[in-house]
Formats: sequence, C-alpha cells, structure tokens
Amino acid sequence: MASDVTEERVLRAVRERRALVNEAIDADFPMAEPRRLYEASRYLLEAGGKRLRPTVTLLVAEALGGVSAGATRTPAGVDYRTFPRVDDGTVDVMAAAVAIEVIQSFTLIHDDIMDDDDLRRGVPSVHKEYDVSTAILAGDTLYSKAFEILSRAGADAPEGLEAVRVLATTCTHICEGQSLDIEFEHRSSVGVEEYLEMVEHKTAVLYGAAAAIPAVLLGADEDVVDALYGFGIEAGTAFQIHDDVLDLTVPSEDLGKRRGSDLVERKATLITVHARQQGVDVDGLVDAERVEGVSEAEIDDAVSELERAGSIEFAREKARELAANSKARLETLPDTEARSLLVDIADYLVTRGY
Amino acid sequence: MASDVTEERVLRAVRERRALVNEAIDADFPMAEPRRLYEASRYLLEAGGKRLRPTVTLLVAEALGGVSAGATRTPAGVDYRTFPRVDDGTVDVMAAAVAIEVIQSFTLIHDDIMDDDDLRRGVPSVHKEYDVSTAILAGDTLYSKAFEILSRAGADAPEGLEAVRVLATTCTHICEGQSLDIEFEHRSSVGVEEYLEMVEHKTAVLYGAAAAIPAVLLGADEDVVDALYGFGIEAGTAFQIHDDVLDLTVPSEDLGKRRGSDLVERKATLITVHARQQGVDVDGLVDAERVEGVSEAEIDDAVSELERAGSIEFAREKARELAANSKARLETLPDTEARSLLVDIADYLVTRGY
Repeated sequence: MASDVTEERVLRAVRERRALVNEAIDADFPMAEPRRLYEASRYLLEAGGKRLRPTVTLLVAEALGGVSAGATRTPAGVDYRTFPRVDDGTVDVMAAAVAIEVIQSFTLIHDDIMDDDDLRRGVPSVHKEYDVSTAILAGDTLYSKAFEILSRAGADAPEGLEAVRVLATTCTHICEGQSLDIEFEHRSSVGVEEYLEMVEHKTAVLYGAAAAIPAVLLGADEDVVDALYGFGIEAGTAFQIHDDVLDLTVPSEDLGKRRGSDLVERKATLITVHARQQGVDVDGLVDAERVEGVSEAEIDDAVSELERAGSIEFAREKARELAANSKARLETLPDTEARSLLVDIADYLVTRGY
Repeated sequence: MASDVTEERVLRAVRERRALVNEAIDADFPMAEPRRLYEASRYLLEAGGKRLRPTVTLLVAEALGGVSAGATRTPAGVDYRTFPRVDDGTVDVMAAAVAIEVIQSFTLIHDDIMDDDDLRRGVPSVHKEYDVSTAILAGDTLYSKAFEILSRAGADAPEGLEAVRVLATTCTHICEGQSLDIEFEHRSSVGVEEYLEMVEHKTAVLYGAAAAIPAVLLGADEDVVDALYGFGIEAGTAFQIHDDVLDLTVPSEDLGKRRGSDLVERKATLITVHARQQGVDVDGLVDAERVEGVSEAEIDDAVSELERAGSIEFAREKARELAANSKARLETLPDTEARSLLVDIADYLVTRGY
C-alpha cells in the first residue's frame, strides 16, 4: 500500500511534467483549419487529464539516459526534445510522450461514442458537445496526428520506424480489446483469464507502449525494451482493475462521470466476473437502463452485495499483485530517481482515490 | 479522350495486378480474433474494388525500378516483395500498395457512417451489415493495420520512416477534407477553389500518397517524389470530379449505389457549385429526404437542368484539364511501359463509364 508520502511524490512528479507535456501538445498539435475539426480534436486534451502515460514515457527516458530530473534538477531543466541516445545522437522523447497522450485521447472519443457515454473528464463527451460525425473525425485526426508526431521523434534514429511499429501494433490491440469489451456486454459468462486478456488489449498496451517506446527510440537493448513493455502491461492492467473498483466506490463528482456506470452499461469488470462465479445475480443489481436513472442508494446496495461476495476485495488483491509484479520488472533500469518514481507510480495506480 | 484501346489496356493492367494485391491483402491482413471485428474490417476489402490506387503504387515502382512488367514480362513475374531500391537493398512495395488500399477501405467505412449511406460496392455498408460501433472499430483497426503493414515495407530502408510520415500526413488531410465536405452540406455558397481544396484533401491526397510512397521507399530524388505526388493530386482530383458526374449519369445498378445520391444528400460537387453560380436552385432540384425516396424521372429532370446550365460540361472540362496536367508530371519518370500505363490511367480516370 502506498503511503501518503508516495502519493505526494507521484503527484508532484506528474504535475511538474504535465506543464511541459501540455506545452508540447500545443506545439505539436496546434489549432488549424477546419477550425471545428481541430477544436473537437483538441477538446478532450484541453479538458484535463493527469498525463500519467506521458509521464511514464519521460521517466523511462530519464532513467535510461542518465539525465535524471529529481534529486538534482527539475524536469524543466531537462531537454526532452534533444534527449541523448544510449550510443549516439538524440531523439525527441517529448514527441513520443505527446503521441501517447494523443492516442489516449482518440480512444476515449471513439469509446464514448460506442458506449454512448455523456460525460468525460467532467465535461460532455465529444459526440455530445459536437455530434457523432465530428467525434468520429476528431478521433481519426488524433490517430494520424499521433503517427505524424511520433515519426518526427526519431527522425534520425534507425529505431524511429520500430517505434512507429510498436505504436501501430498497440492501436490494433486497443481495437481488439474494445471489441472484446463490447462482446462481453452481451455474454452472461466471462472468465477471469478472458477478462484480463481484454484489459491487456484495451488498456494496458498503451502503458506498455508509453514505457517501451522511449527505450526503443533511445536505442536500449531488446531485453530492456521487453521488460519495460511488461512493466506497462502489468501496471496498466492493475490501473484498469483499480479503475473498475473506483467506478463503484468513488462519488460521481470526484469521478467526473456517474458512479456505477459500468453496472448500468453491463460492462464486464473483474468484480462482476468474480461475482457471477460466486452466484451473484449481477444483471439484477441495478434496474436502470441509463446512468441518469440510477439512484445512489441502488448503487450502495449493489456495492454491499459485491462486497459480501468478496468480489471487490478479489479485484483489489489482483490489482496489488499485478502492481508488485510490474515493479519487479523495473530492476532492469539503472537505479535512479526516475526509476524510483516509476516504482511509486505503480503503487499509486492501485491506491489512488480517483 | 481515351480510346477503347486505352481503357482495355488499363483494365488489363489493373486486373493483372489486382490478383496479386488481393493475395497480398490476405497475407498482410489475415483473419484474426476477435472474429467479428476482423470480419467487419475485411468486409469491404473482400467486397471488391478495382484496386486502382495500389496499381498506381506498383506501376510507379516498376517505372522507377526498371523492373517493368508489360512488354516482356507479366506482373506475376515481378517480385514486388523484394523490389530493388534505386541505390542499394530492397523494399516491399507490395506492402505499401496494401497499406494504401487498407487506408482507402477505412475511409469508406467511416464516411458511410457519417453520411449514413446504406450501400457501398453493391453491398450493405459496414455499419448497416454490422452496427455503428463495429464499423467505427473496423475503421480504426484498418487504420492501425495500414501503419503496421507500411512500417514493415521499408524495414531496412532509411526512407521507411519518411514513407510513414507521408501516409500519416495524408490521413490527416483526408480527415480535414471530410470535415470540409460535411461543412459544405450546410452552406449555401461554396466557391470553385474551396471545393477543389476540399477534394484535394478528402480524395486526391491518397492518390498522391499511392504515387509518392513507392518513390520514397525506393530512394528516388526529392523532385521525383514531388512530381509523383503532384501527379496523384491532379489525377485524384480529376477522378473525384468525374465520379461526381457519374453519380448523376450512370444507372444505379452500375454505380453499386443509388444514382443522384449526392443531390439528395446535399453534397457540394463541382457541378452544384457551378450551377449555383449560374443561378440554378440546386436545393430545389430533388425533393426527397432519403435516396430511397427519389425517382429516376426526378433525377433525369435535375440532370437536364444541370446540363442546360452548362454545369456538367464545366465539370467534365475541369476533370480533363487536371488529367492532362497530371500526365505532364509523369515526364519525370523513365520512359517505360509502366509510365505509359500511368498515363493511360490518368486518361481512364476521367473517361471511365463507372
């Protein structure tokens, strides 16, 4: 369990890099014509977000490059745009961080259309604020922009193309995961292993890419790249499982969306998968057809039943186990302040309040 | 005006390469799990299509590589997978051809959702055959697969990354063009230049990429790459203008979709842009709200009025002019059978019956 001190360290590290990432997003993905398209494309990027994934990208670079912010310097003093490679030359690891966040934003926009979710990051989702066509196109624009941006990151590095390949494969996996997620809504029985495979594809691979791509660009050895990818997969899966717990346990105003939405939308989560195996009538837990129609009391009752079945504790335990495994992978990195922050992030992902 | 002999030569060249392209699509984008997602992603690719753009890609490679099919050998005798570069090494130009066709298929699927078009290539559009969520995801999957496939094409070529950058920029332009196209449906006045800019972004850039990417991969000089991109832009714009003419003049069963659909959907075309400037009440030409509701007689009357205004001839003339310009760009290529076929294709794009 992460202490308050750990959480504070993580939030400070994220906050310090967020300002730089936001500046870089503005520089690499500026407003352009047609105005409505670019406004819609940038809308969620501007609505906030912790920038956890880009922070992972920058920290991996710091750990590998020996250009560590933290003990002796602030992130603002690190030139992420011309970051020294392991052998020779430089790459733009900030562009890689931006590309990861841009892909994340694309997936949120298209997922919200498919799930018909009204709220995201405390504001109307893109297809509600604009319309479905604009939201589809905004997602598509973010998609290609991410590849444009990443292809410039390693322009002179032979590994630039490999980084693109990792991102492309990651996006394919995300689509596969989202497809499974939708399929699971219509299936009464989903196994724990199947569920974990879905989360790995839908969510965790982008953490994998966030950690592996800077290593690829910097020319790290293949076993280091693989270990970092594994770190991202396990930490990202832990993140999603914890997210599913938070969807049930955190007040709507802190979540930025309605509490219990996963239950109403019949989403498979590790909690409901476990509960079904314990004989809980998961489909009967809430009655509402739409998230707006569900009462807080109804969600409270559902949560109590899931707690009695041990399903919430099962999910918490699985998340903790995955986070512990992910931290072990980081031993491949040099012992730096940046590595220590990555360890803290793995803890934070499964202990954060929202 | 292209002769029947020209058309026959083009169709033979396309047909000979189509079989190889289709084989390559199966190899590079095979069925996978989740099954429904991959079926939906491959659905339009399997429904047909002439494979004009990939043929352009292969012909450019043939013209540059001196490995010309035609007079002395058939395309089946050319190894497009290990195609000799201008200086040293080989690239997989077939993978580039597949990537272009996969992107084309992605744009059709998402465009059909936005336009709510029911038919495509004579079969139900993907969101009608499956559902909107599956169609969004199928398009997204094709998108990332195209980048995966292209990133393997030039794996050992330093220009591999530049090829990816061209494709990414192309996709951004396509989104911008589609956004303008939608915007134009809600505007009463669109200028000829604006319209041509929209077509360049939405449609022509993919012809530009189809012609330029093989040149990039093969290591051709920058002025050759630029000339080929220009060829694609002009030929592609001519193609779209001719397509707009065909939408009004070709029977529905040959089009594979309902004749006159552009008029019903209030799409701006060069024909309607011109007609408005001549004082024609374009919005009053057809009464129907949906393509299913429009009669052949109503379309016939609309076409007669557009002919009287000179708008159809204006569009035909513009298409011919662009095709002529595009052919002139090809003089940068060595004088080969492949170049001669590219010239024929430019003619064919503005003379084809459907």
